[in-house]
Amino acid sequence: MTKQYKHAIGVDIGGTNIKLGIISNSGKIVKKTMVKTMGDGGPRVVVSQLKKGINGLLQKNKLKISGIGIGCAGTVIQSKGIVVNPPNLPGWGRVGLGNIIKKEFGLSVFLDNDANAAAIGEMHFGSGKKLNSFIMVTLGTGIGGGIIIDRNIYHGDFGAAGEIGHSVIDVYGPECKCGSYGCIEAYVGNHYLVKRIQSEIKRKPDSKIWGFVNNNIENLSPRIIDEAAQAGDKYAKEIIKQTGEYLGCAFASWANILDISTFVVGGGVAGFGTPLITAAYNKTVERVLIPLKKRIKVIPAKLKNDAGIKGASALVFYKN
Amino acid sequence: MTKQYKHAIGVDIGGTNIKLGIISNSGKIVKKTMVKTMGDGGPRVVVSQLKKGINGLLQKNKLKISGIGIGCAGTVIQSKGIVVNPPNLPGWGRVGLGNIIKKEFGLSVFLDNDANAAAIGEMHFGSGKKLNSFIMVTLGTGIGGGIIIDRNIYHGDFGAAGEIGHSVIDVYGPECKCGSYGCIEAYVGNHYLVKRIQSEIKRKPDSKIWGFVNNNIENLSPRIIDEAAQAGDKYAKEIIKQTGEYLGCAFASWANILDISTFVVGGGVAGFGTPLITAAYNKTVERVLIPLKKRIKVIPAKLKNDAGIKGASALVFYKN
Repeated sequence: MTKQYKHAIGVDIGGTNIKLGIISNSGKIVKKTMVKTMGDGGPRVVVSQLKKGINGLLQKNKLKISGIGIGCAGTVIQSKGIVVNPPNLPGWGRVGLGNIIKKEFGLSVFLDNDANAAAIGEMHFGSGKKLNSFIMVTLGTGIGGGIIIDRNIYHGDFGAAGEIGHSVIDVYGPECKCGSYGCIEAYVGNHYLVKRIQSEIKRKPDSKIWGFVNNNIENLSPRIIDEAAQAGDKYAKEIIKQTGEYLGCAFASWANILDISTFVVGGGVAGFGTPLITAAYNKTVERVLIPLKKRIKVIPAKLKNDAGIKGASALVFYKN
Repeated sequence: MTKQYKHAIGVDIGGTNIKLGIISNSGKIVKKTMVKTMGDGGPRVVVSQLKKGINGLLQKNKLKISGIGIGCAGTVIQSKGIVVNPPNLPGWGRVGLGNIIKKEFGLSVFLDNDANAAAIGEMHFGSGKKLNSFIMVTLGTGIGGGIIIDRNIYHGDFGAAGEIGHSVIDVYGPECKCGSYGCIEAYVGNHYLVKRIQSEIKRKPDSKIWGFVNNNIENLSPRIIDEAAQAGDKYAKEIIKQTGEYLGCAFASWANILDISTFVVGGGVAGFGTPLITAAYNKTVERVLIPLKKRIKVIPAKLKNDAGIKGASALVFYKN
């Protein structure tokens, strides 16, 4: 049994940067830092960067640390601290990251998928504080998911649960990078969304989006769609509504399957804000089975930019 | 704590008949009987029929009975033994069936949704004996589901989990009786399947199905499609393959969400047999995320006609 102190280290290993922080058990950031991931160098270089980052945090630190929580993309075998082929880090295969970091720093190490870490973070420090069960939906390049049931993260048979982005919403839909077709990610994931609009917008010569991208549609991003919508552009507003509605169709299915009625929405595309949340809520209620309609809630995540490190620290405080 | 004996009563309340049996804890039927449901008479009449059925079973019975397990359609609040608006029984609202039967017979009563009872039955007496987690899929008029996680039925927040039939597979798809569009049930549920084929078959004048329905397509049923396929009809074979493929698209989504990789398929349309199972398996493997591909299994249910009463008795033996 590890000793429990009031602080832990939270680490968020991304494709570009490794973010790190010392976080209190009430979710306050005491200190934070960042190092380059240098993923092209393979696992050795990344592990060396990770150690550098943690050493940076611990320098001059006088707080007692309960352990290190690490969130990263891809499949994580939580019980063994093994990372399997993170999609944003080439050449990894299986890496026993937990043991490596434990040996180096003499602290307990807890690993999980970044979407699961985000869900655990929201449960303890964010929008999920009072929720018994919810699905955390992280909208970014991919659509990540973390399923909280009775205040525990649900891992499934082999730790791979929560890949909600690869739920089909149209069997005849566009190809998804996972190899399937019509996954919700292929509709609302950043790249797919941008690509679809880049193709559609040719038929919308009057859209204000053209101004925001300086007439070069290659510059399109979810942020620009949001800016155009806020400037009153009708088409941009439609896109946001439609994005929310696609999400709502998927939410209704998940609610029917799991009898979980709250969806906490975070990540970049969630920056579309209230119009997205409202459209998602309305479509979910429209499509879900009658007994669930009254219970549906779609709420924004609270942790925002520091979700990754806060969620990772929660792995230490609330290991399950 | 109820005394545990080797026998229990299992009851399956259907829209037309109430089936009842005394079942051993190894799943053997000692005695069985059936009474008309008489659902049009409302809950009082149905309850009176149910009591009549149980009395019939207990007549001359000398075995000690652990309790009564009851499976019925619709939402069941398991913990309170309350049935809420079963869709096949008009005028019910909320009925405290558990307490009514408990008072009448002085035995413990356990209630669950019929699809959940089927899942629990397969887990203990059928194809799920050795499985840690699986999804039981019952193909009939509706598509029922029971989710087994770590050898427990998963009930969700309010006992309504497992409504897998109302997972969307095409947001632009046909209307489903639940009020949504493109649910898997609207593709493979008996009525929807028959209706779709009745409309399509006009373009298939050479199909052997015409002979099996005596040129009156109103006579079409899943059984006739199966007979035509077994007689070598190409179009009937295509229908069965397509039905399996639609299921596979849904299975892949559920496997990705839940990291559960085994699907046990029962119910009427499952009578399509190996061609259906094979098509569902192939499509699931094609569409599921790479780490799960090797683990996918689609297997037929074992309990067949007595699934309802055996599953209901399992509610008593393995209450959770």
